[in-house]
Amino acid sequence: MIRQGDTAENRGELRAEDKEMLTALAEPVKFTEDRLLILDQTQLPGRAEYVELTTKEDVWDAIYRLRVRGAPAIGVAAAYGAYVSLRGSAETDPEGFYAEFLLVKEYLNSSRPTAVNLSWALERLERRLTAEKDGPDGERNRAADERGKSGAEAVKRMKEAMRAEAEAIRREDEAACRAMGEHGLTLLRPGMGILTHCNAGTLATAKYGTALSPLYVGHEKGYDFQVFADETRPLLQGARLTAWELSRAGIQVTLICDNMASIVMKNGWIDAVVVGCDRMAANGDGANKIGTSGVAILAKEYGIPFYMFVPSSTIDLATPTGDDITIELRRGEEISEMWYERPMAPAGINTYNPAFDVTDAKYITAVVTEKGIACPPYGESLPKLFEQGGHGR
Amino acid sequence: MIRQGDTAENRGELRAEDKEMLTALAEPVKFTEDRLLILDQTQLPGRAEYVELTTKEDVWDAIYRLRVRGAPAIGVAAAYGAYVSLRGSAETDPEGFYAEFLLVKEYLNSSRPTAVNLSWALERLERRLTAEKDGPDGERNRAADERGKSGAEAVKRMKEAMRAEAEAIRREDEAACRAMGEHGLTLLRPGMGILTHCNAGTLATAKYGTALSPLYVGHEKGYDFQVFADETRPLLQGARLTAWELSRAGIQVTLICDNMASIVMKNGWIDAVVVGCDRMAANGDGANKIGTSGVAILAKEYGIPFYMFVPSSTIDLATPTGDDITIELRRGEEISEMWYERPMAPAGINTYNPAFDVTDAKYITAVVTEKGIACPPYGESLPKLFEQGGHGR
Repeated sequence: MIRQGDTAENRGELRAEDKEMLTALAEPVKFTEDRLLILDQTQLPGRAEYVELTTKEDVWDAIYRLRVRGAPAIGVAAAYGAYVSLRGSAETDPEGFYAEFLLVKEYLNSSRPTAVNLSWALERLERRLTAEKDGPDGERNRAADERGKSGAEAVKRMKEAMRAEAEAIRREDEAACRAMGEHGLTLLRPGMGILTHCNAGTLATAKYGTALSPLYVGHEKGYDFQVFADETRPLLQGARLTAWELSRAGIQVTLICDNMASIVMKNGWIDAVVVGCDRMAANGDGANKIGTSGVAILAKEYGIPFYMFVPSSTIDLATPTGDDITIELRRGEEISEMWYERPMAPAGINTYNPAFDVTDAKYITAVVTEKGIACPPYGESLPKLFEQGGHGR
Repeated sequence: MIRQGDTAENRGELRAEDKEMLTALAEPVKFTEDRLLILDQTQLPGRAEYVELTTKEDVWDAIYRLRVRGAPAIGVAAAYGAYVSLRGSAETDPEGFYAEFLLVKEYLNSSRPTAVNLSWALERLERRLTAEKDGPDGERNRAADERGKSGAEAVKRMKEAMRAEAEAIRREDEAACRAMGEHGLTLLRPGMGILTHCNAGTLATAKYGTALSPLYVGHEKGYDFQVFADETRPLLQGARLTAWELSRAGIQVTLICDNMASIVMKNGWIDAVVVGCDRMAANGDGANKIGTSGVAILAKEYGIPFYMFVPSSTIDLATPTGDDITIELRRGEEISEMWYERPMAPAGINTYNPAFDVTDAKYITAVVTEKGIACPPYGESLPKLFEQGGHGR
């Protein structure tokens, strides 16, 4: 059911196009008829509900409360969000409008300060607006000229530029994800059993996802995968999100606890592991959701290929190895209390709750990017991806 | 707080000896002043409450509802439970009393049909009662002779024999656990970081536990271990029970999610892994709580010794390998619904929920039994434990 913003009432009957949104491949951010709609991921898997965001406060809140999550999806939502926050501005002076944008940018940036794609998307909007305001040569003349004729016309064009840039961000992410899916699919065969961890799916990106993209691309081609989804404690992204998005897309998926990865591999049910990546060092060590490194070690022991899906923007050649990646520690209550109706651990128990771990390059069979597939040794193959802008094999 | 049976009121103020029960090393079954008390494990870790069992229905219910769990602890509870169920019998004919016992035995056996220690303990009581009734030579004369004099006297002796046998079962289990602790401690050093999975602690046995016994024995000696407890999804025995019993005993324990075992090992925090075992095959393959095999593989990869604690009664030389062990599958709702306030997985999602997995012998550094420590190759060392009744090295 589509709802307007946070406090608005339901709109009643589902419109045909809204229903379509909920049956096609889930997109976490939709922009249609000049409306910004986000799938409220905090309600998944119980309810699948698109919420319209119309103000900067709506957008801030949606990002802060993880209604939209996943670095690429946050970037897309923030870009559209800046646009919808400002499209109603009565400002007619381009400099004044630009100043308004800077305030919105600063405000939205504060919703999740560490999300790289959030600030990256807003920087892109800023560059685009600067160019629009000052002209392609940065001579601060174009908008000034316009102001002589019609400041309102110039602001209108700046608003259109924002929307166009947001659309470009969305489109580029979708294209990159699709490309990762096409490249990744060359590593898979019809009927394979595939294990995944956490959620690196369409819900985390503009569309398709990273690690799950080859599953969707393969599904289109009738590959008939058998997917096993780790529930991914403590926040259960596998149970809540991955199991939801794969099953609704018609892909066979079986939910398991994280500690069952070993037995499903031993049973011979897994032919490949696909996971995402939050940051990859120059040597191919990849930080991803906590538990990924354990899955990689099990895969190696059972002789199963382990593929990490890494947008090239996530490869940080300035970080030499995984040891140089700082691991975020989160509050222990996520382990000892969250989700439960009653205490499931002794009050005040010590916990250790790292959000990520680093999978050593030696356990990663191949790195799939939108530019192509990199194979070991990654110290050589990853830089090549950037040099040639293509295949890194 | 001590409560009488299931529906009785609280007894009010904690008596000094009750308080002692809750501060010393937790014993899941206490028999004191002719009262059978069990620590209600379904209330842990929120409440630590001993409940008195006085009827066979109390005992059946406590086992069925997992108020007492862990194979050895169930055996002890059932043995005492049969005694308290029958001690008030007005029967004065030994054969009649024996018939009453058989009914109680059959009834209690139905509480958890697959629990080996349950039927084993009740068989032991039956043999003892038969001997008491029929005489040491099985000539059916002793009780018959008594009957001529005083049937009531004979029944009284049969009741005392039941209590004595229950006490023997409890005492022998405690001694075996203590022995496992002493043997296991020879493998550990003060200050070590120890990882454990599920609950193989005092709560599962008469006292001390199996895998956790060396931690308690070492704690007595000031070993100052740093223990990491896997929460052990889906039923969270690590979070609910292991973290509780270790922390209340004053042992440093840190609770982690199962998928964090890899990072704590990589961090260099783990010097040894200790786990229990539900059934070990003749070649040393050991079935234990789901997830154990994954921990073993990680330990091998990180070069950390992996010790399995196995009472000799759990070693089944008639089972050639782990492939011959049938794995119990449990209902998927334990993964998709249990503990949660709201659905954490899509309705109707496929699940796979094996209760155990098999750790291959090649990952097990040593097998610790009450008779001593067996090292690879287990096909040779395990039978020797039984032949010589002692060390299997």
